[in-house]
Formats: sequence, C-alpha cells, structure tokens
Amino acid sequence: MNDVRFALHGGAGVLDRQQFSAQREAAYRTVLEQIAGRAVAALVAGASAMDVVEQAVLELEDCPYFNAGYGAVLNRDGAAELDAAIMDGRDRACGAVGAVLRVRNPVQAARAVLRDGAHVMLVGPAADRFAAAAGVPMVLPDYFVLPERVAQLRLAQAQNRVTLDHDETYQPSLAAGASPDPNDKKGTVGAVARDQKRDLAAATSTGGMTNKLPGRLGDAPIIGAGTWADNATCALSATGHGEFFMRCVLAYDVHARMLYGAQDMSSAADAVLARAAQMGGSGGLIAIDRDGRVILPFNAPGMYRAWFAGHGIQVGIYPGG
Amino acid sequence: MNDVRFALHGGAGVLDRQQFSAQREAAYRTVLEQIAGRAVAALVAGASAMDVVEQAVLELEDCPYFNAGYGAVLNRDGAAELDAAIMDGRDRACGAVGAVLRVRNPVQAARAVLRDGAHVMLVGPAADRFAAAAGVPMVLPDYFVLPERVAQLRLAQAQNRVTLDHDETYQPSLAAGASPDPNDKKGTVGAVARDQKRDLAAATSTGGMTNKLPGRLGDAPIIGAGTWADNATCALSATGHGEFFMRCVLAYDVHARMLYGAQDMSSAADAVLARAAQMGGSGGLIAIDRDGRVILPFNAPGMYRAWFAGHGIQVGIYPGG
Repeated sequence: MNDVRFALHGGAGVLDRQQFSAQREAAYRTVLEQIAGRAVAALVAGASAMDVVEQAVLELEDCPYFNAGYGAVLNRDGAAELDAAIMDGRDRACGAVGAVLRVRNPVQAARAVLRDGAHVMLVGPAADRFAAAAGVPMVLPDYFVLPERVAQLRLAQAQNRVTLDHDETYQPSLAAGASPDPNDKKGTVGAVARDQKRDLAAATSTGGMTNKLPGRLGDAPIIGAGTWADNATCALSATGHGEFFMRCVLAYDVHARMLYGAQDMSSAADAVLARAAQMGGSGGLIAIDRDGRVILPFNAPGMYRAWFAGHGIQVGIYPGG
Repeated sequence: MNDVRFALHGGAGVLDRQQFSAQREAAYRTVLEQIAGRAVAALVAGASAMDVVEQAVLELEDCPYFNAGYGAVLNRDGAAELDAAIMDGRDRACGAVGAVLRVRNPVQAARAVLRDGAHVMLVGPAADRFAAAAGVPMVLPDYFVLPERVAQLRLAQAQNRVTLDHDETYQPSLAAGASPDPNDKKGTVGAVARDQKRDLAAATSTGGMTNKLPGRLGDAPIIGAGTWADNATCALSATGHGEFFMRCVLAYDVHARMLYGAQDMSSAADAVLARAAQMGGSGGLIAIDRDGRVILPFNAPGMYRAWFAGHGIQVGIYPGG
C-alpha cells in the first residue's frame, strides 16, 4: 500500500472552463476517479504495474470521452487509425502498434507484440492481422466512427486544418450521449504505475489528430517519445502535439536528464515540456519515479488526470485541480 | 573543404573474411568509395548536408549489395517492406516512412514527409500513396524481389528464424550478379554529413530483417533510435538489431550523454553500443559531431563503411580496415 503509485491522463489541451458545464465536468471527474480507483485497488491487491497500466488504458480506450479506442478522432479518410505502446520498467521490454484499424483495444495489441517478443513495433493492416492471430478482440472499423467525430472531421476539413483533439472547436450533438459536451477537448490517454515490488510500467493509446494523413504516427507508440519505462529512472506517458514530442524524444529526454544530468524528475519534465513548447508543441505528461514521486505537469490550459501518491485518489482537469 | 565531413555505412554484421574473395571484397570497397567520393565532392561544391545524405542513401538503396531499396531482404510474406528516415541538424526537422512497398527510394519518401511538414512519420500503404502523390518515383513491389533474397527467406523459414541480414547463412547464386557473394552479409544503410556551413544531417534506410513479421518497424525510421541529427551534438545513423536499439533509444542516447553527461561523442557511442550488446543486440553506427569528428564504431565482426575526415576517402569492412 505504501509502495503503490498510479497516474493516468485523458489528454491535455484547450479546456474552456466557461463552456464546461458543472454536470459535464462532474461526469469526466467521475470517470477519471473510477478508473484510477480500480487501478489502485488492483495494485493494493498485488497486481503488477504492467497489468494495471494495460487495464487502465483499456478502460480509457473504451470510454468515448477520450481520443483513444472507442471515441477516437478520425483521419482524413474518415477512419480511426489507432496507436498504442506499453513498456515494462524491469527490463525495458516493450510493444507498440501503429495505424491499426480493427483492434478494439490497441493497448492489448501492444501487449501482444511485447509477449510475442520477436519485435517491438508492428504497424498498419499487418498489425491488425497479427493482433487477430494473437487472440486480441477485433471490431469492424465502423465501431470507432462516432457521429461527433465525423462532424469534427468535416469541420476540420472545411477549414483545411489538421488538429489535435484538444485544439478543436466542433459542436457535437449533445443528445448523442457518446460525447457529452460541446467542449470535450480530449487527447491521448495513458497510465503509469509502480507496484508493490516497486516495478514501473507505462502505457499510452491514441487516435492521433483529426484530419491527419492516413498512416501518420505520432509520439504515443514511439518508445522514448510518448511512452517510456525504466526502473532506473521513471515511467512516463505523454500527451500533446506528437510531431514536436517526437523531435524532442520527449520521454527518453526526461530519463536521460535524470540519468546523465542528475536532474530530478520534475525539473527534467519541466525542461523538456518547455523545450517542446519553444519548438511549437504544447501538451503534458504523467510520470512516476523509482522513489514513488508522482508528477503530472502540462503547459496546455488543462489536462484530464487522476493519480494516487499514497493518500487517496486525486482528480484534476485545470491547473488548480 | 576543411569543414566538410562525411560517413556512410552499408550495414554491420558477421563478415567472414575467409569466405569473402578478394574480388568480391574489392567490389564492395569500390562501391563504398565511389558513393562516398561523390558525396564529398558535392559537399566541397557547396551542397547541403541534407541533400548529400539523401543522395548517398539513395545510391546505397539502388545498389543490390545492401539491404535497402533494391536488394532489400524479404518479410515473412515474401515482400520487401522498407523503412527510412532523414533529419536536419539545424532545426531537428525530420521525416520518416515505415513499411512502404512501392517507393523506389524510401529516403526520398522520408524527405517528402519532411518537406510536407504536417507530420514526422507515415507508415504502411498510406505512406506509399502519400509518396506517389508527392511525386516520388514508384515501382511495382516485385522490383525489390531478387532471387537471392527469396532463397534467403526460404532458408530462414525452413529454420523458423527471423534474422538480421548479417546473421544469415544463405547461398545465393553467384551467377546472378545482383548479390555478388555467398557471404554478402549486409544490413541497414545510412549516411551522415557536415556541410560547409557546418550543418549536420543524417539519413538511414533499410529492408529490416529477413522473415520479419509484415508491418514490423525497426530502429532505422524511428527518430532518436536509428537516426538523429542536431547541430548541438551530432548526426548519427545506426545499423544493427533494431529491437534492442529501439529499447536503448540508441541515437538519442548518444546525443543525451553528450549534452547532459558531458561525454565526448566517441565515449557516448561506445557506451550505448555496449549497453545494447549487454541487452543482446549488436551492430554499429556512424556519427559526426559539431566539431567535425567522425566515428564509425561497431561491435559486430564487421561493418561496411566509408568516410571523409578531412584527408581523403577511407573505406573499411573489418575492424582493421
């Protein structure tokens, strides 16, 4: 109990408090708290960090509030192309998939790549076939196509924009229920955990950017960019403008600043987020270090997040909480 | 002239000197020297590092001796799935493609992604379509399927192995000409350069591993793993067992050790190659730092390489030269 730590994010972005009704905000906070609560309960019951981050990301994927799995944003062709990665801090074992179309929960496909062991990363239709052969639940591609996301894509295309989910200004149907707020700025989802053995793990999953080119990969599935775990330093999952995070090798940069520069995790994370922002990309990250510190910094106006640092589940959306 | 530097590699691996006839060895050395010679001449004439690494990798792709472009190894389904990346040290602008099937020169597709600017990485059939639309020359997939590579794949499949090119023991037809030696252990190709403005650039291209799963990406197209360039530190292209290099974030690790750990480039490269070897992956890299130092370390028995460090083109295959 004293050793377990957990954090999750549901994306960082432009969250306009004025347009976010108390009811909608409460719905988000409840979901974040519930998923985090189950994750912490599993850790307390002895579950491994790897199993817990996989399950938490799976639940975030299944929730239509967030841009991953069910509810993911659509690419230029109107399809949800999904990316995910998972990494084990004990030995840096990792698995990732990119641009999959039929895997219900991409984080499960990433874990299947890790378990298979031959490779680290599989992409495209072949990755779907691998996942199906590995027994990962599959769906038809239209499972992912929600009316709100179609509207969002049409707006982006009318404006000739490629947008992060959190940069969007679409007005989805309030009646649909799937996307509960016209201001539901969302993004990548991710989770990091430290288990009772003090082992670290991280997982990230995303639908990427609305109106992205088909086949586009962002930072989420790239080991060292959007996802990283090493017991020697930290477990980390990022969310933000993937292209800039890739050029910063963001997650590994935090690791490297800690390992070679003797920076503490928080200073390292602040430095790399500042560097990404300087280059043009905003976002945030969640991370847990070997000593159990939990950080959730972001330089966007908000980041959906929940965490356990030893004293109850905490939830935040805006900088203040 | 005093400022320009250049290095290329044609893969690292098990190169058995006993089986490598003097004639075959001479053929390899000639090709390596010619491509490097043209690159250095272009740099001396004022070409940018970016243009020179793209052109050198394109020539290596077109040469059937090496595992990239024409002559690439085949995946489990008998197709050449190609990966490439290119990066500009001035601003970390970069482009990458993964698992393309119809791009004649994947490095050109990677450069097209960079030029387009919206994204850093495109994969799969959609990346082929992007490249075609961008005007990159396309070929039919069977352009890449050489009889020697088919034989190599069949042998690997008979032995149920997934192999790096340099780990293979196939016996291609000596008469075919395309693959000039039964011992032609090859691998990823890459180039790094410093131009007259002292700007750095790097590019890498590969067919990956024989009998790899379709959709598999290795380190070559991953920014920070197999390819990196930043004027602040170095330009680097790696070749080796990609899965381990990805788990080491190899190229960025060299950058980070230099930037945060105050290590010189050579010590940093030795350390990360040792780390990868400790995890189970051998290989090598070529790199040029901001001050014009050129290194070409490898912990495999050999690495095809050529370089210019200010005093004539040098060529090597084995540790001694």
